[in-house]
Amino acid sequence: MINAIVITIGDEILIGQTLDTNTGWISQELNKIGVWVKKRIAVGDIWDDIWKVLDDSSKEADIIIMTGGLGPTADDITKPLLAKYFESEWKTDDQSVKHIRYLFEQIFKREVTERNLKQAIVPEACQVLFNEKGTAPGMWFEKDNKVFISLPGVPHEMKHMVSKILLPRIQSTFKMSVIIHQTLVTYGIGESYLADHIQHWEENLPKHIKLAYLPNYGMVRLRLSTQGEDKNTLELDIEKSFAELKEFVKEWLVIDEDMSIQETVGKLLKERKQTVGTAESCTGGFIAHLLTMNAGASSNFKGTVVSYDNQVKKDILGVDETLFETVGAVSEDVVIQMVEGVLRELKTDYAIATSGIMGPDGGSENKPVGMVWIAVGNKDHIVTQEFHFRFDRMRNIQQTSYTALNMLRKFINNYVESETYNAE
Amino acid sequence: MINAIVITIGDEILIGQTLDTNTGWISQELNKIGVWVKKRIAVGDIWDDIWKVLDDSSKEADIIIMTGGLGPTADDITKPLLAKYFESEWKTDDQSVKHIRYLFEQIFKREVTERNLKQAIVPEACQVLFNEKGTAPGMWFEKDNKVFISLPGVPHEMKHMVSKILLPRIQSTFKMSVIIHQTLVTYGIGESYLADHIQHWEENLPKHIKLAYLPNYGMVRLRLSTQGEDKNTLELDIEKSFAELKEFVKEWLVIDEDMSIQETVGKLLKERKQTVGTAESCTGGFIAHLLTMNAGASSNFKGTVVSYDNQVKKDILGVDETLFETVGAVSEDVVIQMVEGVLRELKTDYAIATSGIMGPDGGSENKPVGMVWIAVGNKDHIVTQEFHFRFDRMRNIQQTSYTALNMLRKFINNYVESETYNAE
Repeated sequence: MINAIVITIGDEILIGQTLDTNTGWISQELNKIGVWVKKRIAVGDIWDDIWKVLDDSSKEADIIIMTGGLGPTADDITKPLLAKYFESEWKTDDQSVKHIRYLFEQIFKREVTERNLKQAIVPEACQVLFNEKGTAPGMWFEKDNKVFISLPGVPHEMKHMVSKILLPRIQSTFKMSVIIHQTLVTYGIGESYLADHIQHWEENLPKHIKLAYLPNYGMVRLRLSTQGEDKNTLELDIEKSFAELKEFVKEWLVIDEDMSIQETVGKLLKERKQTVGTAESCTGGFIAHLLTMNAGASSNFKGTVVSYDNQVKKDILGVDETLFETVGAVSEDVVIQMVEGVLRELKTDYAIATSGIMGPDGGSENKPVGMVWIAVGNKDHIVTQEFHFRFDRMRNIQQTSYTALNMLRKFINNYVESETYNAE
Repeated sequence: MINAIVITIGDEILIGQTLDTNTGWISQELNKIGVWVKKRIAVGDIWDDIWKVLDDSSKEADIIIMTGGLGPTADDITKPLLAKYFESEWKTDDQSVKHIRYLFEQIFKREVTERNLKQAIVPEACQVLFNEKGTAPGMWFEKDNKVFISLPGVPHEMKHMVSKILLPRIQSTFKMSVIIHQTLVTYGIGESYLADHIQHWEENLPKHIKLAYLPNYGMVRLRLSTQGEDKNTLELDIEKSFAELKEFVKEWLVIDEDMSIQETVGKLLKERKQTVGTAESCTGGFIAHLLTMNAGASSNFKGTVVSYDNQVKKDILGVDETLFETVGAVSEDVVIQMVEGVLRELKTDYAIATSGIMGPDGGSENKPVGMVWIAVGNKDHIVTQEFHFRFDRMRNIQQTSYTALNMLRKFINNYVESETYNAE
């Protein structure tokens, strides 16, 4: 089994000022081609710390991948450190010089500076990984049968380079073992109840198959993993266990793929050639954002009214303003009228509406922080539910959004089933 | 200087299926109280790997903090491993038993199972850190003058425990040194130009002050850091350097705090007691989401129309539908009418509108992927600009949103200045 350690370099990432999404993404990609990521490490812009991490990692892994610290400013020390680490002189990479000139002159329309051109100077000991999307080239070093790779930290530059150049090169350099994952998503049952429910089956899983519980926003994903040499046998084994698992959890099964709830809803709507719109008060557009993260969303998502202000609920969605006085904006009556408003004004097949108190302020005794009304429906039928979430503001917004999308998923499935039933 | 290493345990995080936000957050909090985080590590649910990480870390740091792997299911091995690592027997923590019973019986309204109650059984060698928000208690171990802390992986449980219990206990256990950061935000100048511009000043910074460049979505944050014993001297030194830096970059200065663009805009509006609404096509509600992440957003944010479908642009925002045929939805004319629509229908002081092609599909020769029109304005004046972003879908959405918010920030500042000018 080929092992990798993935390292991100930079104070801003180390102390959490910038969120590291690079090393997780790289790990997923490595995993898909059968490289086992043993560890991910974040380290600061400190010479000795980086040096030690490289030394230690080379004892534990076959492939060491670093991102970050390649910028043109004085706090970026990865390149000089690597030159020293591999006891190397310097060379200028002509393709990179040409590309930097091209980017500045043709694309950025700015004068290219000495500082920019210096990015094309790399240690002689490395093979250059061309950075089509940016100015800092990637580098590939080999030492004592280990491979060290340095990549730029800008996510879209790094991703392009990994997919186009790095993964194929790793596959041609190492003999790969096979890793297979199968994931399904459940909703409506807690992690520990699920574990009790499938305990006997889990204990009797084949030795080479591992089960992981991944709880997230009221959903629990279950992932089976296996690794080895013989792809066909592994696939047959994991298919068999996955089919058993599906049967055990069918009552709570959302989808038998590793798919987010917004992708699941998008897929359902696309299959049915139907559309959705949302009326969002407390979620503030987050459901719309989730649905429009799906590429090709325009085929099934028409739009949203974020009615943060009650006046918007009244003027755009036609909510009866006397309700704000009698039952309040966070109420079943209001979310029902918000759904009706979307169906009427945005002319969609389905609508979602949310109204609640996300915190930290704005709660009262009758309507505490975390209280939410959600409604989903179509022209014939509207389903509502009251929730009480107990998280911080951001988490309450997320939890409300994922719950609302899951309510719509169930609504679409049940409604279609009952349609089919009526038609018989 | 007290050093810490922060570790997250779990296959799902290691292979990037779940994004780790815990260790970054913990690092920021440790940093604030003067603990230097030396390294962050993600490791899988593998006994030997976790053991080795603990061993190695205890050689490099004074405080080792772990999150995750404390769940009630078989893949959670942190607790048995820690019992073995500290050669400890087991004890039942009565406060946790009581709390688990309370949570299940009073809050979740479900039967408590043996599996749930097992979470209150911990190694005898630890001091329990009470988990007010959940079922898995935290643990504090001491060995050879090192402290090992194990925390649950659920973010809101962990955060509450860290703020309320862990940080005060660390402060009373160790003698702390002082860490001070000062951050400002610039817009409109690239990292390398900025570095050239302040090179001479940067080279002459006091030895104990470090400068970091943090580029993000067209903005560059500049952070000065220092650490030492004497808080007053450090503060005076960093204030002096920070004032110099502010003067050097005043042309591009957004704000002299570590504040996001949405917080900056929210603050400006609040000070002026004014409101904003958005009309979002390509950004799909992401600007609304950013603005409503601010607690208390309802005082300055009224709402949004996500007009993904042209019909919604016409019906709700009153965009002239002949424009879709003549100049197309991604055009200056359309975003101007979207701004006018928001001002009229949502009755706000300011409005933002976006229309573009985020990819990966939907581009054409005249309107390629990444092309965006943005407009911001009020009843008297509307400013527009065309952009060409070259990223992936998610990044294009983010870049468009941050750029639009910055356009509004500049618009508000300039407009108020010109108002003042006219009044003189």
